[in-house]
Amino acid sequence: MNYQQVLTQIQKDIQPMLGQGKVADYIPALAGVSPQKFGMAIHTVDGEKSFVGDAKELFSIQSISKIFTLTMAIALGDETIWKRVGREPSGSKFNSLVQLEHEQGVPRNPFINAGAHVTTDIVFSNYEAPKESILDFVRKVSGNSAVDFDYEVAKSERETGNRNLAMAYFMKSFGNIKNPVREVLNVYFHQCSIAMSCADLSKAFLYLANEGVNPSTGETIISKRDSDRINALMLTCAMYDSVGDFAYRVGLPSKSGVGGGIVSIVPGEMSIAVWSPGLSESGNSLVGTKALELFVQYTGKTIF
Amino acid sequence: MNYQQVLTQIQKDIQPMLGQGKVADYIPALAGVSPQKFGMAIHTVDGEKSFVGDAKELFSIQSISKIFTLTMAIALGDETIWKRVGREPSGSKFNSLVQLEHEQGVPRNPFINAGAHVTTDIVFSNYEAPKESILDFVRKVSGNSAVDFDYEVAKSERETGNRNLAMAYFMKSFGNIKNPVREVLNVYFHQCSIAMSCADLSKAFLYLANEGVNPSTGETIISKRDSDRINALMLTCAMYDSVGDFAYRVGLPSKSGVGGGIVSIVPGEMSIAVWSPGLSESGNSLVGTKALELFVQYTGKTIF
Amino acid sequence: MNYQQVLTQIQKDIQPMLGQGKVADYIPALAGVSPQKFGMAIHTVDGEKSFVGDAKELFSIQSISKIFTLTMAIALGDETIWKRVGREPSGSKFNSLVQLEHEQGVPRNPFINAGAHVTTDIVFSNYEAPKESILDFVRKVSGNSAVDFDYEVAKSERETGNRNLAMAYFMKSFGNIKNPVREVLNVYFHQCSIAMSCADLSKAFLYLANEGVNPSTGETIISKRDSDRINALMLTCAMYDSVGDFAYRVGLPSKSGVGGGIVSIVPGEMSIAVWSPGLSESGNSLVGTKALELFVQYTGKTIF
Amino acid sequence: MNYQQVLTQIQKDIQPMLGQGKVADYIPALAGVSPQKFGMAIHTVDGEKSFVGDAKELFSIQSISKIFTLTMAIALGDETIWKRVGREPSGSKFNSLVQLEHEQGVPRNPFINAGAHVTTDIVFSNYEAPKESILDFVRKVSGNSAVDFDYEVAKSERETGNRNLAMAYFMKSFGNIKNPVREVLNVYFHQCSIAMSCADLSKAFLYLANEGVNPSTGETIISKRDSDRINALMLTCAMYDSVGDFAYRVGLPSKSGVGGGIVSIVPGEMSIAVWSPGLSESGNSLVGTKALELFVQYTGKTIF
Repeated sequence: MNYQQVLTQIQKDIQPMLGQGKVADYIPALAGVSPQKFGMAIHTVDGEKSFVGDAKELFSIQSISKIFTLTMAIALGDETIWKRVGREPSGSKFNSLVQLEHEQGVPRNPFINAGAHVTTDIVFSNYEAPKESILDFVRKVSGNSAVDFDYEVAKSERETGNRNLAMAYFMKSFGNIKNPVREVLNVYFHQCSIAMSCADLSKAFLYLANEGVNPSTGETIISKRDSDRINALMLTCAMYDSVGDFAYRVGLPSKSGVGGGIVSIVPGEMSIAVWSPGLSESGNSLVGTKALELFVQYTGKTIF
Repeated sequence: MNYQQVLTQIQKDIQPMLGQGKVADYIPALAGVSPQKFGMAIHTVDGEKSFVGDAKELFSIQSISKIFTLTMAIALGDETIWKRVGREPSGSKFNSLVQLEHEQGVPRNPFINAGAHVTTDIVFSNYEAPKESILDFVRKVSGNSAVDFDYEVAKSERETGNRNLAMAYFMKSFGNIKNPVREVLNVYFHQCSIAMSCADLSKAFLYLANEGVNPSTGETIISKRDSDRINALMLTCAMYDSVGDFAYRVGLPSKSGVGGGIVSIVPGEMSIAVWSPGLSESGNSLVGTKALELFVQYTGKTIF
Repeated sequence: MNYQQVLTQIQKDIQPMLGQGKVADYIPALAGVSPQKFGMAIHTVDGEKSFVGDAKELFSIQSISKIFTLTMAIALGDETIWKRVGREPSGSKFNSLVQLEHEQGVPRNPFINAGAHVTTDIVFSNYEAPKESILDFVRKVSGNSAVDFDYEVAKSERETGNRNLAMAYFMKSFGNIKNPVREVLNVYFHQCSIAMSCADLSKAFLYLANEGVNPSTGETIISKRDSDRINALMLTCAMYDSVGDFAYRVGLPSKSGVGGGIVSIVPGEMSIAVWSPGLSESGNSLVGTKALELFVQYTGKTIF
Repeated sequence: MNYQQVLTQIQKDIQPMLGQGKVADYIPALAGVSPQKFGMAIHTVDGEKSFVGDAKELFSIQSISKIFTLTMAIALGDETIWKRVGREPSGSKFNSLVQLEHEQGVPRNPFINAGAHVTTDIVFSNYEAPKESILDFVRKVSGNSAVDFDYEVAKSERETGNRNLAMAYFMKSFGNIKNPVREVLNVYFHQCSIAMSCADLSKAFLYLANEGVNPSTGETIISKRDSDRINALMLTCAMYDSVGDFAYRVGLPSKSGVGGGIVSIVPGEMSIAVWSPGLSESGNSLVGTKALELFVQYTGKTIF
């Protein structure tokens, strides 16, 4: 089977599962999305692309955006980032303050909310217009200048963002947020609100499958070493509290968002994006995880 | 450079670090080992082998033995193992009871002590002579019939094993240890005491680099799927509380022991073992970790 | 109303509640007790006594025994006891290992199980025949030479005592249990099994209402200062995880047991014992707590 | 000795300790206070008063203010307060978020910061001008219309209040703060900043020694039942993480503040205030605690 055939087969396989899981409902803009949605897209480093289902429909990328800000923060070349955020799986819920308290305001990794606050804070300190810079970065790596924030989502996030405020003020009390909390979180809520399609996302993350280089433009986004490292952190830290289970079932560096998207990297070969809004208890797309598991089953493409 | 040259270069590179770290001293047999020791061995799935330094000297494999019992438990084919032990990184110290209490006696993964008690308990329930069966298994996969327990180490472990007793009785109070605690721990302490060399270990774990098949004998130890999965669990859960950091620096499925040994798998290619007794704060061999980091740097062999 | 009338009124008041709560069922000997039982007894320091209901029926005193061993340990006059056990409320469940792990094997107070293991260990170190010495002490303060262990209960406790074993081995791993774990716990399980009536108990604890002196015999059990202190510890630490709520509602130094007994002290005046087997979620007798609340309401006897 | 003689003796006794402990230094206004300060005051319900040392010097009452807002909240007569704040000792540091996370945004008691945020939020919901109402209440019970906020302290508190913001936003994320976080905390920081002397404080809290009635004016502040209950909560919950130790040593319902003040109640008899800025590790005045311990030793006035 070629990749297009694999995607078509997967779409067929997951039909009985469609609608399972729980669509995120803490803000209206997410709650209104149909649980029947399913899309999947592949971009290979060689320029091949395959799409299936709702692969070109926009959805809220949410926590997937954490890879973008982490990449931007790492690209600044300042190793002190790792004094402000750890590199270990959290072993607890993605928005836990317990961990933060035990570890003096240093979040366990850049993929839990608190960790992403820190990377956004670093971006905030280093760019004139942080919000716009993030959007520019995403447009550049995705090659799609139409990518944009969803301002309604961003507004809703801000209005329901008390726990994020709690975490950020808590870190600020330890000196680990340098800029004004509300301004940093405003950037954070906007980056989470970015709307992209599976097609956009799988193209955007090709640099992680291609040793740090955007294969479309030849531009070096980050070094090969740093690209490997982001993949390693994704595998060990990026799937909320089911990192081990996801690695066991799928075995690819991946990042999910509560909008129902998941991005996975096959190093040296391709970037995959899948979307289906129903979430598992861990907060990962239920059908999306199954689709990736099937992909590995059909293709043998796992890093192990 | 061929692998032998790489090992020779690594040995040279790490000379200034020799003696750093803290040798495990909770039992005399470990405390007495010279911190100057360093050995490293590679076995490829194609039969190539390379050794350097003290690669043929025996040392206490300790927690590395947890892969053996996990393999034996998985090979039994009973999926209920995953109801009794999790597949997630612990996010805390390897011998923590906190986690156990919060999660009702189900340890987070098979590589923390409590998790290994469970896999040993499963082996205990399924083999007439569990202690001997484990030894037989290790002799078989390593192709070395001289591999043996170090009875002095096993005795010392038992005598200082109050925390292990605490954990096992705690799990028993939740019904998650089925056999008598003291007998299960007796097996556990013996498996930890197994003495092997880097040469033995790198050969023994070739089945994890070769889709579950022992390349020397052609025997299928476990299925390819299960071999992938053990590698995935090693990457996400097996390096105590520095799983993410180790993946970031080395990026290979690996397991360490307090005796100073580390085993790493390059899927499809080779199995590597390194030994140096000085431990980092996380409990992993300090020089061993550096040696593996250098190996990846020189060869580019990382899964990411 | 005199005390007898108060008790009679209370018995009447609590009738509608009889049978509420959950009888401890982790061992058959406790599970078999009728939830309809209710008894209450008062002994004043002046020799007055009042009984109502099943006040003379024997029941398992369980954790109430922790005051006896604490008194014996304190009476030894060695202040180092407070290096081995704390004086603070636990803020968590009575059999938690989390606290123990965070505080290096030092239990928060002598009224949680782990703390009582330590006081029993101290008694064990200082008496030739610890089990018999505890029984002798209880017989002496209660003036009832017929008080005895319930050997069936003690045996059941031992058989279901895995969590107690876990805690004691855990403390031993920190060096905070000096004697063999199983022998110390054997004493502990026996002291918990002691069978007494409300009449026995209220008489036995008169020394805490009488500045450390047994008013029947004139014997000084402990100093006034130590008697005050035990009362202070009872008020702040002895009602499992509802210390504050109990003080709010009743306001008397008290200790409960899972057998359904509660003992309360009115300093300078009297000792009260109540028994009803149905337990609240916190593990305190539901009807017993209500009875004591009514007692305070009718008599105004609170320390606040 | 009469009370004046007792105070004079105590002042003499504690001289060698003066200067011990650590003055709170998180805001300049507190850091600048001399550690040599010591004052103590007694007001009896019968109108007797005794002062010693710096008993009439103003200091920052800080957490002692939590009793005032709790009293005001309880006086509203709405029992639902106890659904929003617990009545148990925290068993951990006074500003811990761990507890809050485990218990779904319900703080353990009204004397930890988070609990006081809730009582202040209740006052905020029920008074037109909450800040002024609190000040009016304090002026009324102390009989001193000159009592005022220290606006510099309040401003500093707000500027260093990130952890308080974190806690309040965290509770708001659970729906347990009803009013705007910043406005509630503005009231909270002002109440903490109130400047009073030992003389003021011991007079102000006489209602807790007098069954809820202000003995100077005859006004009922709260019911006897509620007065008893506040005393019970003070004894079990109000001395940070040394509740048990303080009860063991002093045995009086008490509340301390980081300004170095402590208030203690002898029910039915008197209210005592002591001030000395050097704090113990638990955050209670070191010399103040010793002074109260001596008071109990000299007078036998303990509730046990």
